[in-house]
Amino acid sequence: MTEARRSAKKASMREVLAEAAFQLFLERGFEETTVDDIVARAGVGRRSFFRYFPSKEDAVFPDHERCLADMTAFLAAAGGGDPVEVVCDGAKLVLRLYAANPEFSLQRYRLTREVPGLRTYELSVVRRYERTMAEYLRGRYEGAPDSALRAEVIAAAVVAAHNNALRSWLRSDGAGDPESAVDHALGLVRRAWAEADGVNGANGAAGGWAAGEDVVVVVASKEAPMWRVVQGIESALGKN
Amino acid sequence: MTEARRSAKKASMREVLAEAAFQLFLERGFEETTVDDIVARAGVGRRSFFRYFPSKEDAVFPDHERCLADMTAFLAAAGGGDPVEVVCDGAKLVLRLYAANPEFSLQRYRLTREVPGLRTYELSVVRRYERTMAEYLRGRYEGAPDSALRAEVIAAAVVAAHNNALRSWLRSDGAGDPESAVDHALGLVRRAWAEADGVNGANGAAGGWAAGEDVVVVVASKEAPMWRVVQGIESALGKN
Repeated sequence: MTEARRSAKKASMREVLAEAAFQLFLERGFEETTVDDIVARAGVGRRSFFRYFPSKEDAVFPDHERCLADMTAFLAAAGGGDPVEVVCDGAKLVLRLYAANPEFSLQRYRLTREVPGLRTYELSVVRRYERTMAEYLRGRYEGAPDSALRAEVIAAAVVAAHNNALRSWLRSDGAGDPESAVDHALGLVRRAWAEADGVNGANGAAGGWAAGEDVVVVVASKEAPMWRVVQGIESALGKN
Repeated sequence: MTEARRSAKKASMREVLAEAAFQLFLERGFEETTVDDIVARAGVGRRSFFRYFPSKEDAVFPDHERCLADMTAFLAAAGGGDPVEVVCDGAKLVLRLYAANPEFSLQRYRLTREVPGLRTYELSVVRRYERTMAEYLRGRYEGAPDSALRAEVIAAAVVAAHNNALRSWLRSDGAGDPESAVDHALGLVRRAWAEADGVNGANGAAGGWAAGEDVVVVVASKEAPMWRVVQGIESALGKN
């Protein structure tokens, strides 16, 4: 057997096990289903299960390992570009994993709500995504003040925004377009951190000052008269 | 026995059990210590343990329930004031819990690093603090667009900043002043969200525009010549 065929066979055995496990969890409940039940349904030996999944919990989330690897690869290949944009794009790999199979995602969401052990497992998966993004950001901010702090705070904000939109979609039984909801949610983080980093003025019109300089930020209504904006700026700069 | 004396007795039994448990975890390891070992060391019956702690994990973090209750009460009593400032002050209750007993906090940190089950438990505790803060913020932002999203993102950012500073302190074996480190870390979040919310210009000098208006944000070096700042503003406002 060639290596490619062997890994195709491995993937399908993994899928068979995950599907058998999930069907049983829905039929009998998660706690009530044993690994023996799962392997009996899948028609394989007990040891096969543990070759693919360290625990029953892992079989509920069979795709996260691959998605984590995809995210790591995506970030490693990202090169330059605004670091916050890059991690927002990376986060969307997770959304697409859920959106690619709505029926499974919705059933799993309901199952996870009912089983505390699965919620805890999910927290640790989310934490691994967060760490992957923070590690990327730490590299991008290297040498800047508070690089690790900034990386961890932005990664946490990206994950929270992503999960807010994903959860709304799951809670609404898959109504609407989850990708545009996630884009909207991530926009809040992008705006907060682009502005806080001093990278952009709105419209990019006030660009040209490097991040990390001692900066002053002025917020003004678009409808404000020009004299009032200038007065605000002068006062903030201590030049009046 | 009066109610007060009864609850004082209860508290001290709880402390005796937590202390016995923690000593045994350090001596023998967490996994190797049974509840029977703990009650034998504390000199009480097995059922006493479960009256105070649902699980062995809970005995490692005996103060978080109280701290969560303190945070909830603190936020409920907070009244007005900048919502982001209020949750930052709320987060500092957790820091003070750790800083009040540095030796115990440092030993527990080392124990937690070694036991995956304790790390998972810690994640779920952290999540409860995050939810408590998000719930407060959701109430404060009620009626504003994206109130739940904003609440969850800011709560996550506050928790990440707090934990970055707390972890640095724990990792450094308790060197330096953890409270000022946490203040510094939370400052990053406060600045990002105050600015993003359009509540403040730096120094408060450009205040006077209400949050939620269509705003333009201009970031400028404090050293920039005035003409250049005005040019940036005019361009951002589309007035030149």
